[in-house]
Amino acid sequence: MIIVLRPDASEEQYKQLVDKIESQGLRVHVSKGTERTIIGAIGDERILQNLSIDAMPGVENVLPILKPYKLASRDFHPEKSKIQVRDVVIGGDEVIVAGGPCSVETGDSLLKTAMAVKAAGGKMLRAGAFKPRTSPYDFQGLGEDGLKILDEARSATGLPFITEVMETRTVELVYQYADVLQIGARNTQNYNLLKEVGQTDKPVLLKRGMSVSIKEFMLAAEYILSEGNQKVILCERGIRTFETATRNTLDIASVAVLHYETHLPVWIDPSHAAGNWRWVTPLARAAVAIGADGLIVEVHVKPENAWSDGAQTLRPDKFSNLMAEIRKVAEAIGRTVAPGESA
Amino acid sequence: MIIVLRPDASEEQYKQLVDKIESQGLRVHVSKGTERTIIGAIGDERILQNLSIDAMPGVENVLPILKPYKLASRDFHPEKSKIQVRDVVIGGDEVIVAGGPCSVETGDSLLKTAMAVKAAGGKMLRAGAFKPRTSPYDFQGLGEDGLKILDEARSATGLPFITEVMETRTVELVYQYADVLQIGARNTQNYNLLKEVGQTDKPVLLKRGMSVSIKEFMLAAEYILSEGNQKVILCERGIRTFETATRNTLDIASVAVLHYETHLPVWIDPSHAAGNWRWVTPLARAAVAIGADGLIVEVHVKPENAWSDGAQTLRPDKFSNLMAEIRKVAEAIGRTVAPGESA
Amino acid sequence: MIIVLRPDASEEQYKQLVDKIESQGLRVHVSKGTERTIIGAIGDERILQNLSIDAMPGVENVLPILKPYKLASRDFHPEKSKIQVRDVVIGGDEVIVAGGPCSVETGDSLLKTAMAVKAAGGKMLRAGAFKPRTSPYDFQGLGEDGLKILDEARSATGLPFITEVMETRTVELVYQYADVLQIGARNTQNYNLLKEVGQTDKPVLLKRGMSVSIKEFMLAAEYILSEGNQKVILCERGIRTFETATRNTLDIASVAVLHYETHLPVWIDPSHAAGNWRWVTPLARAAVAIGADGLIVEVHVKPENAWSDGAQTLRPDKFSNLMAEIRKVAEAIGRTVAPGESA
Amino acid sequence: MIIVLRPDASEEQYKQLVDKIESQGLRVHVSKGTERTIIGAIGDERILQNLSIDAMPGVENVLPILKPYKLASRDFHPEKSKIQVRDVVIGGDEVIVAGGPCSVETGDSLLKTAMAVKAAGGKMLRAGAFKPRTSPYDFQGLGEDGLKILDEARSATGLPFITEVMETRTVELVYQYADVLQIGARNTQNYNLLKEVGQTDKPVLLKRGMSVSIKEFMLAAEYILSEGNQKVILCERGIRTFETATRNTLDIASVAVLHYETHLPVWIDPSHAAGNWRWVTPLARAAVAIGADGLIVEVHVKPENAWSDGAQTLRPDKFSNLMAEIRKVAEAIGRTVAPGESA
Repeated sequence: MIIVLRPDASEEQYKQLVDKIESQGLRVHVSKGTERTIIGAIGDERILQNLSIDAMPGVENVLPILKPYKLASRDFHPEKSKIQVRDVVIGGDEVIVAGGPCSVETGDSLLKTAMAVKAAGGKMLRAGAFKPRTSPYDFQGLGEDGLKILDEARSATGLPFITEVMETRTVELVYQYADVLQIGARNTQNYNLLKEVGQTDKPVLLKRGMSVSIKEFMLAAEYILSEGNQKVILCERGIRTFETATRNTLDIASVAVLHYETHLPVWIDPSHAAGNWRWVTPLARAAVAIGADGLIVEVHVKPENAWSDGAQTLRPDKFSNLMAEIRKVAEAIGRTVAPGESA
Repeated sequence: MIIVLRPDASEEQYKQLVDKIESQGLRVHVSKGTERTIIGAIGDERILQNLSIDAMPGVENVLPILKPYKLASRDFHPEKSKIQVRDVVIGGDEVIVAGGPCSVETGDSLLKTAMAVKAAGGKMLRAGAFKPRTSPYDFQGLGEDGLKILDEARSATGLPFITEVMETRTVELVYQYADVLQIGARNTQNYNLLKEVGQTDKPVLLKRGMSVSIKEFMLAAEYILSEGNQKVILCERGIRTFETATRNTLDIASVAVLHYETHLPVWIDPSHAAGNWRWVTPLARAAVAIGADGLIVEVHVKPENAWSDGAQTLRPDKFSNLMAEIRKVAEAIGRTVAPGESA
Repeated sequence: MIIVLRPDASEEQYKQLVDKIESQGLRVHVSKGTERTIIGAIGDERILQNLSIDAMPGVENVLPILKPYKLASRDFHPEKSKIQVRDVVIGGDEVIVAGGPCSVETGDSLLKTAMAVKAAGGKMLRAGAFKPRTSPYDFQGLGEDGLKILDEARSATGLPFITEVMETRTVELVYQYADVLQIGARNTQNYNLLKEVGQTDKPVLLKRGMSVSIKEFMLAAEYILSEGNQKVILCERGIRTFETATRNTLDIASVAVLHYETHLPVWIDPSHAAGNWRWVTPLARAAVAIGADGLIVEVHVKPENAWSDGAQTLRPDKFSNLMAEIRKVAEAIGRTVAPGESA
Repeated sequence: MIIVLRPDASEEQYKQLVDKIESQGLRVHVSKGTERTIIGAIGDERILQNLSIDAMPGVENVLPILKPYKLASRDFHPEKSKIQVRDVVIGGDEVIVAGGPCSVETGDSLLKTAMAVKAAGGKMLRAGAFKPRTSPYDFQGLGEDGLKILDEARSATGLPFITEVMETRTVELVYQYADVLQIGARNTQNYNLLKEVGQTDKPVLLKRGMSVSIKEFMLAAEYILSEGNQKVILCERGIRTFETATRNTLDIASVAVLHYETHLPVWIDPSHAAGNWRWVTPLARAAVAIGADGLIVEVHVKPENAWSDGAQTLRPDKFSNLMAEIRKVAEAIGRTVAPGESA
């Protein structure tokens, strides 16, 4: 940690700072420049984060040097993590695609969608039983009934499923059914929920919040990892910016940055980024090209009848087309996407 | 709701749309322009929000006309709401100030701070027992012990207190102690938590999330209101933008917009917006001048020893100065701020 | 244009509105709903944009239906535009790559870089002679001397070049040398400059400004088109958001949106989006995968000696690698990238 | 400047760095920590900004210590600057208000508006003769005719006027008429224009661009100052964020930050921030409360007939009310606003 002193900092303020740092077992390294004096604190600066160094008199600025996360960092875990979900491996050469409706609706429509997802080469099913909706007057999900419908679709198709858990009280319930626990974008920094899923042994798909920086995203993962659960999949789904032509702005570069900074697999959700089915397939191609380890895509047998998010949902034929396109892109970069049934 | 058709929409697509709208009991009003045909759906368009109209073939765009919130809206409740917290009235002519440390630390430091807050004219105490921290390695709060310390400070000073509740499971516990339940900025759209506090009878201070729009903020309030709890205080605390000179960008205009759109009281948190004690008092002046009904300010007897947020925390003398300054601004706009003890 | 009246709008206010609209030759279509009355103005609503309809008493909201641009719109020009630059065709199946240093420095370094760009399959040269720099103390470019050096490099390699023009007064000068006139991100809405290059017959590479929406970007292109110059290439280079891990946030979806809305070719600048050479090649792959018609990439024989933007600049070997990677991605989506010399 | 080395940086890379820094006349100060080695470059780090230190192999991160601006900095000019415009002093205790229409329209309407502005206590007139409009089909301003109309209104009322200059070629023309040259928000980083007005001796009102950070804003001012013109007024007018309830998000805190960092006077434009007349007066109160040295407000005798920006324009009676309100707020913080004529 580098501490820049104000030009008018007194000798006493300087001493207080040095004392505070040394009292934590760190060493101090001072450098007097022409316009500013700077103090380097040598040692594990994470100890200093709980002290209010930047509140001390005479301090102009505090610049951290080390990264605040450890378990998520590639510094300490250079090899990429692989996460097994039944017979699916996430983080390997194969790009995994999970498809399904926004919400679980009826057993019939879910099953049809699941079969279409499988037929196109999708390896996992996605659908929400507990739905975070902006308005209290919108459909809030089927709850446990939805989980049961998902269970049936899994039995019928063999596809493991991802579904969202919204609060600590239902982690146990969702855990009993789901293959992968999803933390939604509004809960990326719901720390109690992160700790709770961190205490389970099921993989967690952690979505990036709309205004969560890449660094904070890794710190959110660190909450799960530090509770003992190492199976975290990061999922970029668009951030909030001034642009309204798409629902969110897909921060595609985050895939490259995350792969550099962390060993955890990185997925993309092109549907929520787009907000419109027209841009979903192009975004999926870009996601695979930059190196995403998986995609989570909204698919519905009849989007115009979907109970939520219809506008950004693909019909089975369009999803099948998406799969065909990303299969070629994956091959172009030395990866694979599972073949569809007709292939 | 206005539905704009694509120039190439077919007669059949048009009929499907009309059927869908009329099947929900709304009437249809069609207008054929030179370049586009538009359909007006007349009736309560909130019914249409659960249908995926924008996913239907032939639709170019869907423009809602009505506001998606009802209980929060000033349309249906023209008079400003007043909320009583013990002997404090929020939403009246008096601008209420709550002060206190970011986190509860020790009984001694909290009591000293509380007395300083009271002496300066503060009417409420604020401090966190449960702390949402970006890093799992940061101090996470004292939990129930913190609530007990707050209780003692309340007994000693008579100041009611606001404290954060972070998850559904602890609502009951926090409810037993707190005068006002705070929902933090990371939980503005934690809908289960909103519903849970909506089922209590205690006032809720709902902070605006970093990337929550004003419309979504009112919909979050609507979650609480629609569960039966009408005592919601909205609190702007800065949004996330590209600017890094301050911790967040205080959206000061939101106070005026919210007062126009909703009857609920609106507070400002200048401390989290600023991120630096230097800008807290100027922001407080602006907040009172634009018409905020209250302020929540971080105060600590020794900010440089604070266990969190020291940099943005005011020393008692600076807080007393803030109070003196906003007292004059309040008078200039026909409102009041309680006098300090020495006054 | 749809005009939503306030619930308390008077009959007189209503009549004033209707009169104003009809006086412009548009027809009016009224629909009285349960909570709001709405007026549809039928005809070319662009006429109404210069009237302050939203300032009229009784008006709650104004919703435009038609798009504000015409010449840039794909509605009126369904086929994609192709732009010829010497023997290079932009907007066809081939993805064109322009490479070169941020600034022109010396004849020798530029020539070496140009030859490396060509050897790797680059079809155009890019470099700045006039440089917009954030600080007045930074290197401001060589001016006309830089243009002469570019001219020599073109003669030696046969690569046409793109270079920035910063102000109306130098359009004529830059026009004499350049093959493509670049409008930088800080000048996207410098309307005088847009008009000036719109009066020339040379292709214009128009970069998207950091906070320019996709709609405004097309309106900026409309300025050039409406002056008579139809050769506009749009270039996305990242927008400004809260994320700081990259220099800007590449709005990759804009390529898909722009290809849907406009017939103009769309390029990507992965270098300015990234701000760090590490992310340039991954972003280039994503750009080609989503359908960009071209890339503009910073390349320098020795980035650590570059006079500007070294951190985001590729060494020739890395650029050659980028070309090899995007060549495969282009093929995967049915397009091509020119072979390198050794190929 | 602090240079953080990567953990895997070689001894040779380290030496290259040290050589590069020392070759510029700076000294080097090295500190080896447990996880990273850091190099401090001691001396005027601005010299290093033109070198691509961050592009050198082995470098993880570069952290500047000093501020990149000098002439704008309060470090070197602790006293606040005062700028004289005829008999008006900007930057003193009096808060100056400039009012007028968005665009100059007719001599009659401008004169009436100017007289209303003066009657209410406004000290300056504002109106645009050259208008930067998002669409090429919108009204583009009257040009020199507009300047002549402004000149007449000044003669009739005695109010000096502010008007925008959009490009280098018209600086001389606008200079002949205007009292203050305005640089609009789209031109904050139009460096040629900044240099050109920097070579004149007239005060410049520099508006902050929609995505220009506070630091970049001061660097834009530095461009003007470094050409010799010290009369720069900074004007915050809202930045672009995700929030759409207002046209822009007024970054009110920037006033406090700028007053801390620079000696230049700081104004607020509440009209462009609001985009709706309803929020203009509340924002004006906040602006004065936080310490703005002046306001620039859109006023028109008949906003619903305004040729541009009608929705955010105040009628004379509302402007007079704004003046009355800010007069009280100014007094509450020890400043003044000129009395209206009836006062």
